[in-house]
Amino acid sequence: MIVQQGLAGQVAVMIDVLRASTVIITALSNGSKWVYPVRTRNQAIQAKEQFISENPLLAGERLGVKIPGFDLGNSPLEFVREKVNNRGIIMTTTNGTAAIVQLRKARRVVVGSFINVSAVVELVKNTEDLLLVCAGTKQKVALEDTACAGAIIDRLLSLGKSPILTDSATIARLVYLHYKDNLLAMMREVSEHGRRLIQLGFEKDIEYAARVDSTTVIPVVETPGYLLKKFKRH
Amino acid sequence: MIVQQGLAGQVAVMIDVLRASTVIITALSNGSKWVYPVRTRNQAIQAKEQFISENPLLAGERLGVKIPGFDLGNSPLEFVREKVNNRGIIMTTTNGTAAIVQLRKARRVVVGSFINVSAVVELVKNTEDLLLVCAGTKQKVALEDTACAGAIIDRLLSLGKSPILTDSATIARLVYLHYKDNLLAMMREVSEHGRRLIQLGFEKDIEYAARVDSTTVIPVVETPGYLLKKFKRH
Repeated sequence: MIVQQGLAGQVAVMIDVLRASTVIITALSNGSKWVYPVRTRNQAIQAKEQFISENPLLAGERLGVKIPGFDLGNSPLEFVREKVNNRGIIMTTTNGTAAIVQLRKARRVVVGSFINVSAVVELVKNTEDLLLVCAGTKQKVALEDTACAGAIIDRLLSLGKSPILTDSATIARLVYLHYKDNLLAMMREVSEHGRRLIQLGFEKDIEYAARVDSTTVIPVVETPGYLLKKFKRH
Repeated sequence: MIVQQGLAGQVAVMIDVLRASTVIITALSNGSKWVYPVRTRNQAIQAKEQFISENPLLAGERLGVKIPGFDLGNSPLEFVREKVNNRGIIMTTTNGTAAIVQLRKARRVVVGSFINVSAVVELVKNTEDLLLVCAGTKQKVALEDTACAGAIIDRLLSLGKSPILTDSATIARLVYLHYKDNLLAMMREVSEHGRRLIQLGFEKDIEYAARVDSTTVIPVVETPGYLLKKFKRH
């Protein structure tokens, strides 16, 4: 939604509510040491060799379904503590992890979703040059990502911040204000991707993704290095 | 806003409210025979050679300002009958004409703006596979184009049509419904490009562009051939 060309120096929040953002936040909440986002299945397998001494898990989906042979798919409900505690996770999804990889030049990449939105706002509230990146689906805008970006913008405004809003940011905030009391219904009944996930049997993922502020965990990438780790307050 | 890959067979409405759409509609309303959209200044000059027997006008802007040596810029108020009646116009603008050129494969390209929105709806209301293309500014979504796309969608729904809405279409309609009674204020005070045009001295263009349904003229390209001409009702 709010995508710009020059990313160096910016703080970027990557938003893929259904489901990569929600999954990554959940994995780190449940004890995962790190999440390494890659674009392709083959890159995931190569990365497993690279990190073999840490015995990482492979996670990812194509067309919403777990990649054959991988340990985990892209449902946040799979990323339970019994599976991910103290493990690294190499992850490839159709949209979300690709969006993170595209943000390599940003000074800091933060993963945001409804489940950690207030924590994200607290982290980025004093950032001058904030970029909210909605991963979307197949190069198209996703309603739930736009609404989540809008939630961040609306909370920044509520804090008395006066960000200069791009048109995309103005639009995202409108979308959030329209759906703020009906986020679950929006994702179940309106969002294209939400409806597709229900068809695939992932309705509970949507309910999970709609639990606003259920965690304060914030995955961050600090360059150099490219592992998403839990942000630690100093 | 609502951009798809495969355009063959689709009817596409190109929307660049500020200002290419508004200009093209105005030119044809004021008697221009055709408008030929091209990407670059050099292509415009080459096209003038190609159409030299028709003595066409050259029109276009870069950074909002008329291209030096061209007959006309990109302000709809320039395209008066005394200048454009019975003339062809070769036109290049930063976003709008490039968007039309990208739509070459669509079966029909229609140019829409607030000034002809109801006429456009009447023309496309029975189209099964309708694509609304918001030209935006510098690859970014523009608020006024999104609102105009939303106006088309909202009118289609009011006609009892039940289009399958993409998330982009859902968002565009929300934006329209939010601003429908304040389109001028939205373009003057909120839209990034509107505010930039005011700085450049084009405030009257915005007032003109906000006059909903001031004309029923609809520029269309019917392939093969690539001239925008006035749609003639049969």
